[in-house]
Amino acid sequence: MGSGMARNLLRAGFEVSVYNRSRAKADALALAHAGARVADSPAEASRHCDAVITMLADDPALEQVVFGEHGIASALRKDAVHISSSTISTAMARRLAAEHAKRGQGFLSAPVFGRPEAAEGKKLLVVVAGADELVRRCSPVFDAIGRQTFVVGAEPWQANAVKVCGNFMIASMLESFGEAFATLRKANVPQQAFLDIMSTLFASPVYSNYGHFIVDGKFEPAGFALHLGLKDVRLVMQTAEECSAPMPIASLIHDQFLSAMAHGQADLDWSSVARVSARNAGLE
Amino acid sequence: MGSGMARNLLRAGFEVSVYNRSRAKADALALAHAGARVADSPAEASRHCDAVITMLADDPALEQVVFGEHGIASALRKDAVHISSSTISTAMARRLAAEHAKRGQGFLSAPVFGRPEAAEGKKLLVVVAGADELVRRCSPVFDAIGRQTFVVGAEPWQANAVKVCGNFMIASMLESFGEAFATLRKANVPQQAFLDIMSTLFASPVYSNYGHFIVDGKFEPAGFALHLGLKDVRLVMQTAEECSAPMPIASLIHDQFLSAMAHGQADLDWSSVARVSARNAGLE
Amino acid sequence: MGSGMARNLLRAGFEVSVYNRSRAKADALALAHAGARVADSPAEASRHCDAVITMLADDPALEQVVFGEHGIASALRKDAVHISSSTISTAMARRLAAEHAKRGQGFLSAPVFGRPEAAEGKKLLVVVAGADELVRRCSPVFDAIGRQTFVVGAEPWQANAVKVCGNFMIASMLESFGEAFATLRKANVPQQAFLDIMSTLFASPVYSNYGHFIVDGKFEPAGFALHLGLKDVRLVMQTAEECSAPMPIASLIHDQFLSAMAHGQADLDWSSVARVSARNAGLE
Amino acid sequence: MGSGMARNLLRAGFEVSVYNRSRAKADALALAHAGARVADSPAEASRHCDAVITMLADDPALEQVVFGEHGIASALRKDAVHISSSTISTAMARRLAAEHAKRGQGFLSAPVFGRPEAAEGKKLLVVVAGADELVRRCSPVFDAIGRQTFVVGAEPWQANAVKVCGNFMIASMLESFGEAFATLRKANVPQQAFLDIMSTLFASPVYSNYGHFIVDGKFEPAGFALHLGLKDVRLVMQTAEECSAPMPIASLIHDQFLSAMAHGQADLDWSSVARVSARNAGLE
Repeated sequence: MGSGMARNLLRAGFEVSVYNRSRAKADALALAHAGARVADSPAEASRHCDAVITMLADDPALEQVVFGEHGIASALRKDAVHISSSTISTAMARRLAAEHAKRGQGFLSAPVFGRPEAAEGKKLLVVVAGADELVRRCSPVFDAIGRQTFVVGAEPWQANAVKVCGNFMIASMLESFGEAFATLRKANVPQQAFLDIMSTLFASPVYSNYGHFIVDGKFEPAGFALHLGLKDVRLVMQTAEECSAPMPIASLIHDQFLSAMAHGQADLDWSSVARVSARNAGLE
Repeated sequence: MGSGMARNLLRAGFEVSVYNRSRAKADALALAHAGARVADSPAEASRHCDAVITMLADDPALEQVVFGEHGIASALRKDAVHISSSTISTAMARRLAAEHAKRGQGFLSAPVFGRPEAAEGKKLLVVVAGADELVRRCSPVFDAIGRQTFVVGAEPWQANAVKVCGNFMIASMLESFGEAFATLRKANVPQQAFLDIMSTLFASPVYSNYGHFIVDGKFEPAGFALHLGLKDVRLVMQTAEECSAPMPIASLIHDQFLSAMAHGQADLDWSSVARVSARNAGLE
Repeated sequence: MGSGMARNLLRAGFEVSVYNRSRAKADALALAHAGARVADSPAEASRHCDAVITMLADDPALEQVVFGEHGIASALRKDAVHISSSTISTAMARRLAAEHAKRGQGFLSAPVFGRPEAAEGKKLLVVVAGADELVRRCSPVFDAIGRQTFVVGAEPWQANAVKVCGNFMIASMLESFGEAFATLRKANVPQQAFLDIMSTLFASPVYSNYGHFIVDGKFEPAGFALHLGLKDVRLVMQTAEECSAPMPIASLIHDQFLSAMAHGQADLDWSSVARVSARNAGLE
Repeated sequence: MGSGMARNLLRAGFEVSVYNRSRAKADALALAHAGARVADSPAEASRHCDAVITMLADDPALEQVVFGEHGIASALRKDAVHISSSTISTAMARRLAAEHAKRGQGFLSAPVFGRPEAAEGKKLLVVVAGADELVRRCSPVFDAIGRQTFVVGAEPWQANAVKVCGNFMIASMLESFGEAFATLRKANVPQQAFLDIMSTLFASPVYSNYGHFIVDGKFEPAGFALHLGLKDVRLVMQTAEECSAPMPIASLIHDQFLSAMAHGQADLDWSSVARVSARNAGLE
């Protein structure tokens, strides 16, 4: 994700320093784009910039990059902004906001919807929350990386709440597909026929694309690994719990993902959750 | 639904006799279209035709029209076809297939996706199952009423299985929306913002349209009443049970719809199921 | 169940005519007890008596015995009472009440808790609902077959509602046990240890007995077959639906039982639902 | 809980030093029992003893007492044993085992079943896991505080897994009761009648006692507050997740507890979860 975003920032004329845990990826970017500088640490990447964007796997990875040795928090200038684009917990977003505020640094949450190809193609949907003034100041950055920016609140964690709820909507579609396909397989209805109808009815590429994975049973290589999907369901459940708002479908998906984990599907695409419904129907 | 379908059959050049329990609707159609004849009973409507199409609310209504006094079964010619477009149970479809077969009459299930406006506008998706030869013979009928026809199997009940699974997919989207909106309302995120993002992410009119109902809290007049939605969830659960295929999201939606019924929402649009999630989160 | 109940009625001094679909069981009873007369039909068994007790598998079986040819409804004297002890739907109980009332016959629902051994040993719990006067008149019958009688309402179907809710409480315990055992097996905790603790904590023979079946994996011969358990869950869900009262655990158990059916467990004891949790955890 | 346990240790002849965050409770114990010494910190309480027992509200409280300033870890002698009786996460138990092992200190998990009255009356059920030799050495302690000791494994966290699964069994009973009572209230069945039947059927004081709370609607003062129940459901879900073993009833209870929280029931007894089912049925 990060390299696609960086490339689009470069294309838009920004000066970009990149840091990646495995340096090869950063070097590749630098080679391809005259403008990219490769940094040896998060601190070095963020020391002289106006804004630093982080895109990492989860809370602990971000914790390390921000608060670990040679981390961002120690190096970012006063008034510079940390834009967090990772899918992290709302709790982590609140912690980041508080810690940066203490240091006089700005903080925005700007998680994105879209896969690596979308990042590359500047097709991301950018969901932003934070102080108005910061949002305004950083909007050229969002324009550079995505096709549309949505501002959802003045507190950064609200963008993370939106992001995990959006992923929940996709996960719910996957589980629903899995249940319907299992029943229809037992009814001897060709899966492709149901997919065609749903693709026409919903007229949504999200339904068509994921539906194809399920119908073809093609879960490798994973576009988005099931264990990451489980992490995201956990995140939405945490947000729901903070809000005292039950989300029973989220809970149900969580259990289906656990069953998938128990059957060795951690590294398959998360659409492979359909196999859980199939197994429960005596298929497979 | 029926009058839109009849109008499109007339437009396509078919001779059409119509029967409706409340005669006024049938008369209105006859007035508007020179070609429509109004029948006094299902038997009269079907006596001399090649195919009779039924579009009714539920199993008992269809039972009455087919097997009741002056019903279709008693009047339909040998080799003529009964095309059932109602959303009925798979069990009822099997019963119809068996009873018509005994009488030497043909039977097809051809439930449709689309609201009355879609029926009027010849925009229905027609899902057909039954014997190949009958499907071929009746295809001009399907072409006349819908924008696309999907053949899903050789046994009529398979089309009904597909139809109830399709409605389940929509119901699941509604419940998921309800849960996400409840959490985000408690997170003080504007509902419209989340809807905009989901409309863009899924790029599906189904999401946009239903999402708007929920955001606006506009559940009257009902496009599709919640008590009918409950009936459809019951149908998909029956199909799942016949197939020994658990559909836990269907079960969950069933319970949410029951709670909606207990709170007087029977005649509101089924998207008002979102209120159940809101109430459970202490909202409303 | 029926023969144990009949035996206790004979022991209590009642004159008893018995009818059983397979006559051998009825004859065996007659041989063992001088007083029992064997009838050739439900009608014959009920023609001259003050009260007829039915104990059958489900709604259709009872329908046949009451309203079929040579059925009870046609033969029972005015003012005599039909006591229905079967686990049937609340809807069926209402139908029976209405039909008997039309004929001037009394009707009580008196379902029981207890297995065949309990019926034999006069240990049943009898749950009764119906008109006060009838309940009073029939109380010697209840005293003869059970160890305790509970009157729960003036409308017969209320007793059936209680019965299906009671069975739901047991089913819920089974499913909970299944989930806990699956987790603890994966935690390498000996199942017997957990069972010992639960037996001590709840101090309930219901927990001890069913817990043993699960720990020993001994599901044959079935004390109560899973497909009958599924029927009972369906009954409680129907009652919940009539009452517009969601019962999400009932729905969940329904899905687990369906998965068990899909894996060939129909004739195993219903405690074998624990295998569904085990499978979902990757065990078995 | 702690003072009842301490009293029984004193009665059994152990020398006891007590530490409590609010010193008044510790002093009260010392006054009542000549033998009890009051310590000023966890470190002081554990410095010279053979075994230290902790009984605290949750993971963070235990973290503080063990690893905080003047905590147990810094003071406990080599070869002395820390016995953790709190209901904590399995993850925390593993962390404690590892940290104590590093310091050459022993560690056992010994959570208990029973309310404060049971602790006072030496009626606790003690669930122990850890190295055999340590269990043997500490068994006089367990004999002093409980009526029965159950050894469930060689790794301390296994006892915590059993404890949270046991609490899950109780929570599941509460939720099931809530659902059944809601349906039966709408069926106009007196709640007391159903409770009497369930008390007789299960013959379990756990059913009788909790059932009474629900029937009487008496949720204050809380024997066990709902927010603590929510914490325990979270713990069992974490254990289930570690084991990749779905526990759908646990997930469902979690959502019902969240709804209870949203309706201000945090400090009511956890049996008040029955109100969620009642609300969902349109009652209250």
